[in-house]
Amino acid sequence: METIRWGIVGAGRMAGTFAGDFAFVPGAELSAVAARDLGRAEEFARRHRVPQAFGDYRSLLESDVDVVYIANTHPQHHGVALAAIAAGKAILVEKAFTASLAGTREVVRAAQTAGVFAMEAMWTRFLPAFAAAREVVAWGRIGEVLGVSGDLCAHRPYDPTDRLWDPDLGGGALLDLGVYVVSAAQAFLGESRQVMCVGRFAPNGVESAAAITIGYASGATASLSCGFDVHGAGRLTVHGTKGWVEIHPRFHHPTTISVHRSGVLPRIIEAKAVGRGYAHEIMEVGDCLRAGHQQSQVMPLADTVEVMKVLDECLAQLGRPRQEAAPES
Amino acid sequence: METIRWGIVGAGRMAGTFAGDFAFVPGAELSAVAARDLGRAEEFARRHRVPQAFGDYRSLLESDVDVVYIANTHPQHHGVALAAIAAGKAILVEKAFTASLAGTREVVRAAQTAGVFAMEAMWTRFLPAFAAAREVVAWGRIGEVLGVSGDLCAHRPYDPTDRLWDPDLGGGALLDLGVYVVSAAQAFLGESRQVMCVGRFAPNGVESAAAITIGYASGATASLSCGFDVHGAGRLTVHGTKGWVEIHPRFHHPTTISVHRSGVLPRIIEAKAVGRGYAHEIMEVGDCLRAGHQQSQVMPLADTVEVMKVLDECLAQLGRPRQEAAPES
Repeated sequence: METIRWGIVGAGRMAGTFAGDFAFVPGAELSAVAARDLGRAEEFARRHRVPQAFGDYRSLLESDVDVVYIANTHPQHHGVALAAIAAGKAILVEKAFTASLAGTREVVRAAQTAGVFAMEAMWTRFLPAFAAAREVVAWGRIGEVLGVSGDLCAHRPYDPTDRLWDPDLGGGALLDLGVYVVSAAQAFLGESRQVMCVGRFAPNGVESAAAITIGYASGATASLSCGFDVHGAGRLTVHGTKGWVEIHPRFHHPTTISVHRSGVLPRIIEAKAVGRGYAHEIMEVGDCLRAGHQQSQVMPLADTVEVMKVLDECLAQLGRPRQEAAPES
Repeated sequence: METIRWGIVGAGRMAGTFAGDFAFVPGAELSAVAARDLGRAEEFARRHRVPQAFGDYRSLLESDVDVVYIANTHPQHHGVALAAIAAGKAILVEKAFTASLAGTREVVRAAQTAGVFAMEAMWTRFLPAFAAAREVVAWGRIGEVLGVSGDLCAHRPYDPTDRLWDPDLGGGALLDLGVYVVSAAQAFLGESRQVMCVGRFAPNGVESAAAITIGYASGATASLSCGFDVHGAGRLTVHGTKGWVEIHPRFHHPTTISVHRSGVLPRIIEAKAVGRGYAHEIMEVGDCLRAGHQQSQVMPLADTVEVMKVLDECLAQLGRPRQEAAPES
């Protein structure tokens, strides 16, 4: 498997941005795309020079792709992921991994049983600046890490027909933005013990914002927020016993971090991403597949389950449904 | 009442810093100090050129001071405040106002019944930079305000004999640091509806850190944290529907803020404080007393009660006692 052949399920904005980064990844080839609307898949294929276009994901799974990037709406991930695993394809699943904790657990179990590679497309973890922050922490530069605080607000005008706001398409701030703050905190703090969430709601009942407090098994705490209805910097701070690290705005695709230690001038670390930033996760998948790994060490499935556990609990506290879409027939 | 005569109860570090700022306030005179240890009061009086020193607060209340600044430990505020009100003295009470919501309510009721001026010494609200942030918001520059996020971490080595860690002296991160984040959020968001708190504890059971999520009557949310056991920037962000305001570190005594609006370069506003920053609250008290007001419009008693309501609920959720000290005999 010299060159990894990729298929994309979903032909939306996210898939398009992702497709552009194949130019920066040697040994990765975008060879197929599928969307429910064949015309849309074909247009996507023309724009991004993808050899094959399909009007349903099952045809894509019968093609010769090695790995499927699942980039349709959150509740659809579950069905496509299970079908891809059954077809023996490796999967990279857009975040949030599924629309429910139960769905995530089922997909993870299926991948492990089948011995198929699976990973959540949490691109942030692979970005050089974010990796640098984890390195600084792992080296003990800020002592023991006992807290994370951060916000991610991305203002979107209310539009109940847009997937971001549509409950049937997994709409709401938690799965779209909350997943970033919760995953970033999880990267530094690990396993949660207590989750508390307060939200604000759009006219159709979908949460437009959420504030989240998490207590971790280690005794650490996180203080997080996200919102579609307000603006904010999008900064993440990792609090340690000897200093702190700031992942500068917008922390989910940072290019700089700063390290602050008592009595020392702050140290700024600049680390730019390749392409639009998605190249790094594409490379990771390729490296894992070539090495025969069934999961990534940077974004392991246990972390995905842990993050989904927190999000599921937040959704439950806000009285929001957690439900996967019925698989396409 | 041309010149306002001040008495200070408590001769600790906080009282000393406060005393230094009288040099910057025309028409305010520091005329007496009281501490349980008369020698300590006398030494404070010498250092800060205070004419009268007392070994108990009751003697100070019998002197000719117009207003008493109550700067001993949190659980002692309650008893001294009630005695000062009974003696007809105006009071400026160090934050946290008391050690419990019940205590705060009792002091507020007593002051209102007696027609005596009372104010919490939340100096942050009077600082020009913080006032500028409220002005920017009041002018609608960031639209409707629907969120606040912020942290205040001040690392203090664990020392169970220090008042910061001593449960009998109101120790713990919530009353000392939490009061700043909760009050700053209250200044922008008003009345709370839901409070959720997760903490971390020192060996003696006092909370060394807390993460707090608050839901407000307006639908707004706050995501806050504080801690003695970690480091952090101390930044506060006010999230609006058209932009955001950052109160730069350390937000509880800021000199700059920045205003961020969609599609516009950020605007930095610099506004330095007079003296060490306490001069502004001293001036406010003088202005109120000369005008015959019984409370400040910038730091009204209703806000103090609201903040204490949140802190009391946080302490309750952490299983921490909320108890005022017995008054000195």
